[in-house]
Amino acid sequence: MAAKSFIDVSPESDFPIQNLPYGVFKPEPASPPRPGVAIGDFVLDLSEISSAGLFSGPLLNGSDCFNQPTLNKFMAMGRPAWKEARATIQKLLSESEPTLRDNASLRQEALIPMSKVEMLVPMTIGDYTDFFSSKHHAKNCGLIFRGPENAINLNWYYIPIAYHGRASSVVISGTDIVRPRGQGPPTPNSPSPYFGPSRKLDFELEMAAVVGPGNELGKPIDVNNASDHIFGLVLMNDWSARDIQGWEYVPLGPFLGKSFGTTISPWIVTLDALEPFACGVPEQDPPPLPYLAEKTSKNYDIQLEVQLKPAGQEPCVVAKSNFNHLYWTVTQQLAHHTINGCNLRPGDLLGTGTISGPEPDSVGCLLEKTWNGQKPLSLNGTSRTFLEDGDEVIITGVCKGNGYNVGFGTCSGKILPSI
Amino acid sequence: MAAKSFIDVSPESDFPIQNLPYGVFKPEPASPPRPGVAIGDFVLDLSEISSAGLFSGPLLNGSDCFNQPTLNKFMAMGRPAWKEARATIQKLLSESEPTLRDNASLRQEALIPMSKVEMLVPMTIGDYTDFFSSKHHAKNCGLIFRGPENAINLNWYYIPIAYHGRASSVVISGTDIVRPRGQGPPTPNSPSPYFGPSRKLDFELEMAAVVGPGNELGKPIDVNNASDHIFGLVLMNDWSARDIQGWEYVPLGPFLGKSFGTTISPWIVTLDALEPFACGVPEQDPPPLPYLAEKTSKNYDIQLEVQLKPAGQEPCVVAKSNFNHLYWTVTQQLAHHTINGCNLRPGDLLGTGTISGPEPDSVGCLLEKTWNGQKPLSLNGTSRTFLEDGDEVIITGVCKGNGYNVGFGTCSGKILPSI
Ligand SMILES: [Ca+2]
Ligand SMILES: [Ca+2]
Ligand SMILES: [Mg+2]
Ligand SMILES: [Mg+2]
Ligand code: NI
Repeated sequence: MAAKSFIDVSPESDFPIQNLPYGVFKPEPASPPRPGVAIGDFVLDLSEISSAGLFSGPLLNGSDCFNQPTLNKFMAMGRPAWKEARATIQKLLSESEPTLRDNASLRQEALIPMSKVEMLVPMTIGDYTDFFSSKHHAKNCGLIFRGPENAINLNWYYIPIAYHGRASSVVISGTDIVRPRGQGPPTPNSPSPYFGPSRKLDFELEMAAVVGPGNELGKPIDVNNASDHIFGLVLMNDWSARDIQGWEYVPLGPFLGKSFGTTISPWIVTLDALEPFACGVPEQDPPPLPYLAEKTSKNYDIQLEVQLKPAGQEPCVVAKSNFNHLYWTVTQQLAHHTINGCNLRPGDLLGTGTISGPEPDSVGCLLEKTWNGQKPLSLNGTSRTFLEDGDEVIITGVCKGNGYNVGFGTCSGKILPSI
Repeated sequence: MAAKSFIDVSPESDFPIQNLPYGVFKPEPASPPRPGVAIGDFVLDLSEISSAGLFSGPLLNGSDCFNQPTLNKFMAMGRPAWKEARATIQKLLSESEPTLRDNASLRQEALIPMSKVEMLVPMTIGDYTDFFSSKHHAKNCGLIFRGPENAINLNWYYIPIAYHGRASSVVISGTDIVRPRGQGPPTPNSPSPYFGPSRKLDFELEMAAVVGPGNELGKPIDVNNASDHIFGLVLMNDWSARDIQGWEYVPLGPFLGKSFGTTISPWIVTLDALEPFACGVPEQDPPPLPYLAEKTSKNYDIQLEVQLKPAGQEPCVVAKSNFNHLYWTVTQQLAHHTINGCNLRPGDLLGTGTISGPEPDSVGCLLEKTWNGQKPLSLNGTSRTFLEDGDEVIITGVCKGNGYNVGFGTCSGKILPSI
């Protein structure tokens, strides 16, 4: 593996040559969208590299997968094509390779300063699913809503619990979120539900897997092959209106409390880039049923942080967590999703659920952090129970390597007042 | 409105000139998909009519909306374009109009016997939502699962309750359904969940609205404009594995118990065709909140029937219901769906939920019919608690007019054994 690029990359950058995450961008506001790879402070335009004939391996040679407005076609091609692309791009960017390094006009065309581009949702999302795979989060939610007797429902220990989310309202980092209006539960003083702007607007610190080839209807994916169906991971903020959610969710689950917006980070970090940061998983007791039993179970050591920035103020860190807290792995999630025959398609999004750790500082949403608003959070002289208009939530994620980072960039969004 | 077509249409046909539902079909297995309209025993190929320059009105003249593999583009154009298309097609098919009637070669190209075509899912479904809008169904489910005290949860009276379903597994009538495998709840004899082919496979008699133009994220649709965002209705069977659903659904709602397959009928009947069958709605008490209060509330008198056909046997009628049993109207469903800012896109599918009526013969699923398997249903000498392999479920729907029917064709599917 090439250790260094001819492009100058700071050791603190999220995007050294060891990372090479994929996204979709527009170099100018009027340009058509095209796939790119992040390298340092630049975006490598893959449509230019492809048009220059530099994807010369057997799987990508002649393919138009990088002359598309989304990454779906490349995602559908599967791991061998992904490995070929990664090897080609790493070689092309390495300090010892003259092809791009010494070609000023190609560099001019193909390397665009990241500060100038507009990033887009990198794939058409056919379906978006959100899991509930942090035990700490499940337990805290249970304690808040049901009390200590049955904090975690028995099924949670057997099933990577999930619900279908709304694909249409998945937006890219930087998109403003309008505070949703809706019904909230009746209160002791008012026997009817209230209606208006949500009074308990929250974020949820999550990551999400992006599906690769997927499966045909009726043909489940074996848990031990599941990683070949995961193109990579992004950061995700599953914005949640707790009052709307609390009133609507029995018996069919969250609906309008979630569907007003879900933010993802623009760069998809591949499992190949994450492999050096693979780590073990929490013990699963009871042991998973055979269809969920993996020969090797993997999490990744991804350090996650949430900052909350009230309008006109400095951001404050409000959560520090880690992807390795997940009880159910993303491969178990994917295998479970298909065990009934449900078909996954390239570009589908599988959220992990809120990633909370065991410590008070590691919980991934305000519901848990303020215990449903009972314990306000203090932020440099102001305080919060839930999000206020103008608040910006900024999620980051990074793997710390030996002399380099593999990072996810940021996943951010600001709350606008209800219309 | 033209009363009669030059094409011979039986008075019992679902597809007289008063109906003109839209679908997408392939005239030959190798043909590209294209939009069509059903007329008697024929399909009118709209790509041929469009290519012949016969859509000459101001909105459709020059449009390529009928030279597409789906109806999404036409759906996005909105009611004025839909009205123009309907008027053009009704005139073209009327007995007094020579353009098509007297042009043998155009008739040869544009009118294909329905028995020869293959029907497809007529639109790309960005998101599929399933409501829960029959009070009889909600009550029966509540009685079965929670008992008489709280049969219907309080929120049901204020909210058109819904969950996000799985868009990828929506299939067209005639597609076989593989019995899903999954986890079922622990039993008194076994403290662990069981795993295997579903033991409680069920159908659900539903209809679904197909979304027209839709809305931008953050901009709700007013309930009094909601009908302009509904292109039409189809029949739907929301296949359900009650054992999987019962074990998984707390607290995030149905997931794998539903996502293995949902069947829709191929012909989308427009609201314009249904308008003569509009009727009143059940009283809503408590009155709906202002954002759900309609100036005029409408249901439609659509007679629905479910037949169950065990392998090698004659079909038996197992349910007779009517769309007019719905408590929440489809326009209220749509307005509620967007009140939080959630964006609907052309082609989105909004299921009504199981349409059960008040009589024992009018319940729309086996869960209710057999009271969760406790009262087997007898079928010409055999019996059923839930569906068995080889069973075919056939849903039909029809509006009875004066001398003509406006029908939906059939929505059918057969159960194949688990793999
Ligand atoms: Ca979530
Ligand atoms: Ca249903
Ligand atoms: Mg969300
Ligand atoms: Mg279904
Ligand atoms: Ni769901």
